[in-house]
Amino acid sequence: MRLALAQFNPTVGDLRSNTERILRFAERADRAGADLAVFPELAISGYPPLDLVETAGYLESNETHLRRLAAASVRLGTGLVVGYCGRDEESGDAANCLACVHRGEIVFRQRKVLLPTYDVFDESRYFVPGKRAGVWRFEKARIGLTICEDAWNDKQFWERSRYSRDPVEELASQGIDLLLNVSASPYHIGKREFRVEMLRAAALRHRVPAVLVNQVGGNDQLIFDGSSFALDESGTLRTRADSFREDLVLWDVAGDSDVPEGSWSSGEVFGEVDAVFDALVMGTRDYVTKCGFGKAIVGLSGGIDSALTVVLAAEALGAANVTGVGMPGPYSSEGSLTDARHTARALGIRFETIPIAPLYKAFEKQLAPLFAGTAPNIAEENLQARIRGNTLMALSNKFDGLVLTTGNKSELAVGYCTIYGDMCGGLAVISDVPKTLVYELAAVANRRRPNAIPESVLTKAPSAELRPDQKDSDSLPPYEVLDPILKLYVEENLSVSAIVEQLGEPLGLVREIARKVDRNEYKRQQAAPGLRVTSKAFGMGRRFPIAQRYVR
Amino acid sequence: MRLALAQFNPTVGDLRSNTERILRFAERADRAGADLAVFPELAISGYPPLDLVETAGYLESNETHLRRLAAASVRLGTGLVVGYCGRDEESGDAANCLACVHRGEIVFRQRKVLLPTYDVFDESRYFVPGKRAGVWRFEKARIGLTICEDAWNDKQFWERSRYSRDPVEELASQGIDLLLNVSASPYHIGKREFRVEMLRAAALRHRVPAVLVNQVGGNDQLIFDGSSFALDESGTLRTRADSFREDLVLWDVAGDSDVPEGSWSSGEVFGEVDAVFDALVMGTRDYVTKCGFGKAIVGLSGGIDSALTVVLAAEALGAANVTGVGMPGPYSSEGSLTDARHTARALGIRFETIPIAPLYKAFEKQLAPLFAGTAPNIAEENLQARIRGNTLMALSNKFDGLVLTTGNKSELAVGYCTIYGDMCGGLAVISDVPKTLVYELAAVANRRRPNAIPESVLTKAPSAELRPDQKDSDSLPPYEVLDPILKLYVEENLSVSAIVEQLGEPLGLVREIARKVDRNEYKRQQAAPGLRVTSKAFGMGRRFPIAQRYVR
Repeated sequence: MRLALAQFNPTVGDLRSNTERILRFAERADRAGADLAVFPELAISGYPPLDLVETAGYLESNETHLRRLAAASVRLGTGLVVGYCGRDEESGDAANCLACVHRGEIVFRQRKVLLPTYDVFDESRYFVPGKRAGVWRFEKARIGLTICEDAWNDKQFWERSRYSRDPVEELASQGIDLLLNVSASPYHIGKREFRVEMLRAAALRHRVPAVLVNQVGGNDQLIFDGSSFALDESGTLRTRADSFREDLVLWDVAGDSDVPEGSWSSGEVFGEVDAVFDALVMGTRDYVTKCGFGKAIVGLSGGIDSALTVVLAAEALGAANVTGVGMPGPYSSEGSLTDARHTARALGIRFETIPIAPLYKAFEKQLAPLFAGTAPNIAEENLQARIRGNTLMALSNKFDGLVLTTGNKSELAVGYCTIYGDMCGGLAVISDVPKTLVYELAAVANRRRPNAIPESVLTKAPSAELRPDQKDSDSLPPYEVLDPILKLYVEENLSVSAIVEQLGEPLGLVREIARKVDRNEYKRQQAAPGLRVTSKAFGMGRRFPIAQRYVR
Repeated sequence: MRLALAQFNPTVGDLRSNTERILRFAERADRAGADLAVFPELAISGYPPLDLVETAGYLESNETHLRRLAAASVRLGTGLVVGYCGRDEESGDAANCLACVHRGEIVFRQRKVLLPTYDVFDESRYFVPGKRAGVWRFEKARIGLTICEDAWNDKQFWERSRYSRDPVEELASQGIDLLLNVSASPYHIGKREFRVEMLRAAALRHRVPAVLVNQVGGNDQLIFDGSSFALDESGTLRTRADSFREDLVLWDVAGDSDVPEGSWSSGEVFGEVDAVFDALVMGTRDYVTKCGFGKAIVGLSGGIDSALTVVLAAEALGAANVTGVGMPGPYSSEGSLTDARHTARALGIRFETIPIAPLYKAFEKQLAPLFAGTAPNIAEENLQARIRGNTLMALSNKFDGLVLTTGNKSELAVGYCTIYGDMCGGLAVISDVPKTLVYELAAVANRRRPNAIPESVLTKAPSAELRPDQKDSDSLPPYEVLDPILKLYVEENLSVSAIVEQLGEPLGLVREIARKVDRNEYKRQQAAPGLRVTSKAFGMGRRFPIAQRYVR
C-alpha cells in the first residue's frame, strides 16, 4: 500500500478554503498513485479552534465541508483520512474526530480518546472523549487509527502516565497491519526527535509500521512544524516530510524505499538552532498573513533583539514588505543608529529615522508641574519607550503594517521591558527566545543573510539606553547566569531552594529573580501573542494569577 | 446543630495569612457556640490558584497549613470544614479537596468529584476527580459533603447535564441529615438567585436541609459574591450571608430561626444593578490591594464611562487614594473638562489637568515627513488616545498608583477603543459592562454619591472627541441597538442569521457588528484584566483565535 503523508497548513476557521486545499493535496496524491492520503488532526477546522467549537454552526459547517470533500473524492482512487470537528453521536457534544473517505463515501469515523488538557492544550474544555480507537479495514489492510495524544501514553515509554488507557495497545491487541497517527503537535525545541522516539517505541513494541502526519504552519502562538514521518515495524525511519513547510511525501508500506539521508533525527541536515530560526520565520509569516496583513514594521534600536527580529521578518515577508524604524533618543549611543541602518541596508528593507528627543522634551515640559521636585525614576525611562511605541503604532495605523515587538524571553520574564512601550505590537516574534539563544540565532541569521547583524551588535554590552550609560547588567545578572535560573523557575516550576541547589547561584539572587518573575505577571498578560519555541512559553500555556502571593 | 457559614475572602497563594484568618473566623464561630464552621472551597489556597498548583511545593504547603490549622483547632469546640489543594493519595496527582477538622485532628478528607472545565473554569487541567462524595459522621449527624460543581448536576433541575454522575443523589441515597456545599462560585448577573433555586431543587427532592458556603472577594478577573445561604428541608431560605463582603452567619439546623426579611432572592433589599455596582467596587478594591497598591489613577474625559469608573474607584479605595486626570485635547469640547472636574470635586478626589495639545503637535511635527500627502485617518485619532495613555502611565510610574482603564464592554467588543491608548492600565473596571448598563450604574452611582455624575454627562451624545464633531453614532448604531446584538453574539455565541431573526435588525448591520467583534480579538488579548459581571466576559473565560476566518 502506498501512503501519502499530506502535511497541510490550514487556517483556523477557514473551512471552505481548507477543504479546497485538502482536495488539491488529495488530487496530487492520487496522481502519484497513493492508495491512501493522510491529513492532520482537525485539518478541515484548523487547530486549535478554541471557542469556535462552541459557536453557532461550527460543527455543522465542519460536517458540511467533510461531506463536500467526500463527494469530490468520487473522482479519486485514493482514500483519505482527514481530521475535523465533529460530534459524539449519542450526546451531541463536540468531539475531535477523523473520517475515512473513499470513492465518494464517508466509510469510517472515529473520535479522539485521550484529550490533552495541560500546557497549551484545553481539549477537555471542548470535546468529549471517544470510547475506543478503531481498526479500519481498508483494501486488505487493518489500519489502527489514532489522533495525536492517543499515541502519547505508551506505558513502557513514559515514566509517568497521564491516562489510564493506551489506545495504541488496545488497537495492537486487535491485530493491525499499520498504525496511523494524525496530529496537530506544536513545535518546541527537541520535540521532533522526541516524536520519533516515542512512536518508535510503539512500532517496536507492537511490531507494526507506524506513520505520523502532523499539521504544519503557525496558528497564533503555536508553531506546528510538520516533520511527519514513517517508521517500519523495526522502528527504522523510512521517510520524513520537511519541517516548517507544507509537504506531500509518499511511502510504500510494504516496499523498501530508502531511509532519507541526513534526516533531522540524526541532527545532520540542520541543528536545532536553525530549526528555531525556521520556526520563527514560519510563525511570523503565518501570523501576519493569516491576520490579513502583508507588511511589518520593526523598531530598530541598534541592539541584537531588534536586529534578529527584523532579519526574521525579512525572511518571512520579503524585504519589500518590511520597514525598519530608528528612533534615537536622548540616551542613544552614536553607534546604535549606525548599526540599525547597517542591518536595514544589508536586508534591503526600507529604513526611516524619527528622533524622539523633541517628543520627550514636550512630555517633560507638560509633566513638569506635577513632576517638580521628584527624582528621575522609571517614569522617565518608560516614557521614552512609550514614545517609540506610539510612533510605531502611528506608522502602523497610517500605512497598515503590523508592528512586531522585539523583546526576548529573559526580559519578559523579569519585566525588563516597558508595557505600552517596547511591548507595543501585534506579534512578539522572539518572546519565547532566551537572550543566550538570541545570540545563537543571530549567528544563524548572519549565515542566512551574510553580515546582516554587524559584529559591533554581537559584542556590545546589552543596554536599553534609557538613561546615561545604562547597561542591562545594572539591573540583572549576566544572561549566562540569568537564563538557567529562568529555565528552572519558569519552564520547570522549581522552587528557589531547588534552583540554588542545582545551579549553585546565591540564594538572594535566585530569590530576587523569582520575585521579579512573579511580580511582572501583569505585564505578560497584556503582551502581544508570542511564538512558542520552548516547552513552556509565556502565553496561552502558562496561566498564573496576577494578584497572588505564593513564594516558592 | 449550630452551623457557622464562614464566608471568607482569601488571597490566592497567601497560604499563611489565609490560614491565620481562617483560624480567627473559627475562633469567632467557637465563641458563638457553633458546632461546625464551614469555609469555602480552596479556602487555604484561594481560588483560582491556576498554575500555582503545578509549582514546586504548592500542594505540600497547603498540607502543612492544613495541619497547622488542625493543630490549632485543639483549643476549639467547633469542628471545621475547609477547602485546600491536596492530592489523590493513590496517584499523587493534585486534587481539589476539603478536610474536616475537629479537636486537633483531621478526621475526614474528600476530593471534588465533578470538575468544571468550561468558561472561566479549567479544573480538569489541574485536578483529578474524586471517586465519590462522602458522608461524614459528625456528632450525631450524617453530613453529605460536596464541593461546588458536585451540587450542579441535579438531573431534574438541569435541562442538559454535563456529567454522568450526580454526587448529591449518591449522597442522599446513603441517607444524610444535612447537605453541605463549599463553593468558590463567581458572580455574574442573576447568579445569586440561580444558586438558591438550584440548591432548593436538591433540598426538596431529597428532603434534606442544604447549606452553601461561598468564597467572597475579587481574585483578578473573578468576583466572588459570597451570598452564602441555608435552606431547610422544605426548601425555605432560612439564613443568608451578605454579598460582596466577608460574613459569619449562624444557623441552627434543627431550630426555627426566622427567615431573614427582604433577602436578595426576593429582590427587595437591592436590585441587580446595585449588585453589579457593589461587585465592581469590591473587585476593584481587592485587585488593587491584593496587588500591593493603595492608590489609583483615572483619566477623566468628561464622559460617562470614566465618570462611573472613578466613582467606583473612590468607593473602593477612598477619595484620598484616587487621582483624576483631565487631559483635554485638540477636539475636546468645552464642557468635557468642566464635567470631569465636577465629578472629581463631588467625590473629593485630587484632580490634575494636563493638556495634550502640545504633545500632539510635537508628534505631528515629528511624523510630518512621513505623513506628508496622506489623509488624516485613525492614526491621528489613536495618537491622541496614546498620548493620554502615556501621560497616565508616567504618573503611575512616578507616584505609584494603579491606572484604571475606563472602557466598557460594548466598545471593547467592536474595537471602539485604542490599544496602548485608553486601554492602558492595570485593571479594566467596567470592561464587562455594556454601555446601556453603564447608564443604569451611573444612576446607582448618583444615589450613592449624590450628583457625582452631572446631568450633562448623562444626556450628551457619547463621543471619543478624537476628531471634530465626532460621535460614537458615526461609527456604531445606537447602544440600545448594539448591546442586544452583542449579547447574542458574544454571550450566546449565536450566528448572524439567528440574531437577525431574533431581533429583527438588518442583516448588513448585524454582519458588520459580528465582523468587528471577530476582527478586534487582537485588542482584547492585550487588554487589562477586566472584572466579570456577565455570564460571558471577554478575558479568561472566552478564548478565540486571532488569526481565524470563521464567519458565523
